[in-house]
Amino acid sequence: MKITQAERDAVYKTIFNRRDVRAEFKSDPIPDDVLKRILTAAHHAPSVGFMQPWDFVIVRSDQTKLKLKQGFTQANAEAEALFEGDRKEQYSTLKLEGILEAPIGICVTCDRTRSGPLVLGRTTNLDMDLYSSVCAVQNLWLAARAENIGVGWVSIIHDDVLHQTLGIPKHIVPIAYLCLGYVSQFYDQPDLERRDWLKRQNLDSLIHEEQWQAKL
Amino acid sequence: MKITQAERDAVYKTIFNRRDVRAEFKSDPIPDDVLKRILTAAHHAPSVGFMQPWDFVIVRSDQTKLKLKQGFTQANAEAEALFEGDRKEQYSTLKLEGILEAPIGICVTCDRTRSGPLVLGRTTNLDMDLYSSVCAVQNLWLAARAENIGVGWVSIIHDDVLHQTLGIPKHIVPIAYLCLGYVSQFYDQPDLERRDWLKRQNLDSLIHEEQWQAKL
Repeated sequence: MKITQAERDAVYKTIFNRRDVRAEFKSDPIPDDVLKRILTAAHHAPSVGFMQPWDFVIVRSDQTKLKLKQGFTQANAEAEALFEGDRKEQYSTLKLEGILEAPIGICVTCDRTRSGPLVLGRTTNLDMDLYSSVCAVQNLWLAARAENIGVGWVSIIHDDVLHQTLGIPKHIVPIAYLCLGYVSQFYDQPDLERRDWLKRQNLDSLIHEEQWQAKL
Repeated sequence: MKITQAERDAVYKTIFNRRDVRAEFKSDPIPDDVLKRILTAAHHAPSVGFMQPWDFVIVRSDQTKLKLKQGFTQANAEAEALFEGDRKEQYSTLKLEGILEAPIGICVTCDRTRSGPLVLGRTTNLDMDLYSSVCAVQNLWLAARAENIGVGWVSIIHDDVLHQTLGIPKHIVPIAYLCLGYVSQFYDQPDLERRDWLKRQNLDSLIHEEQWQAKL
């Protein structure tokens, strides 16, 4: 199936305008059919040995979100304590999640036992199953953006909070807790670039021809 | 920036028609500007704390590809020995890489020291940097598909072969070795589904409402 030039440009537009959303969520509900399309896109990610190790736990209730927000608040206090001086001050002003504001949360997981103990292609690098679930996250993120829905990845939360709050079995690894919702706006740049936390690297400095060259 | 319905459909078309390519590579060269667009898309993946931990080592020479192919052949012999009976027989008939056929190889890596020892958002889960590089892989894969270029992820190769062959420093983690090239065709289904290795899971069985439900 051939992708046309206009379709190609649409893919690039979506990739370049995808953001990690924290502060701009609106409360408008996400229709079921839209959510299903986004999850179907996630389910069509590549997976090692076609093991499809992902599951999706959909969070809608305020009660569940409040518990997760408490988990974030605790982990974020631990995180903030690691920074010093100006960096600490700037850190404390950043909004790093939108758990309560986003109408839907999705925990994407990895079942490391899916399809049995021996998985084609996962014999040399055992982490390939985790990487497959991350590919599902990125498909989900781009599909959501294509639906003009924002996604924010909450990485500052301990796995045991997700396990306990969502009843996730011990042998299942939480990969990402994602907040989803329509947004007031998508910014042109990542929040941390816009706020001068770090600059975007020059791509040419990250490309090596045939052999690694020390560049940075 | 609003994504139109036609643009949304283009994103879904690309996601659903993305394949892991092994046997269908053509030798036609990939123009430099096309490769640059694909790498730019990878570089615009989300990364924890905006650390952008990825690098891209571009492989073009037959000499380098031959060394990597030897690495695959060894790791694949180890892998095949783990399977038994019919499964072993079927495994031996599968083509699992296109290292020599694809005009370009790209090793996507993760520099775990990028942007310093303390990374915003990577304080709770230290693997977030690896996941960021995987997001870059998936962006690269979809951008390539949008350019009608196939990608195959070679997971059956030891990291030390990649380190040695490509001169990658010890502290840099190889995340994926990807083969890229134009293709004779993209199949409708993943190879392993088409060859009855495993079936696609029913998406509904992977969706949990509010709490994990034992379904599988």
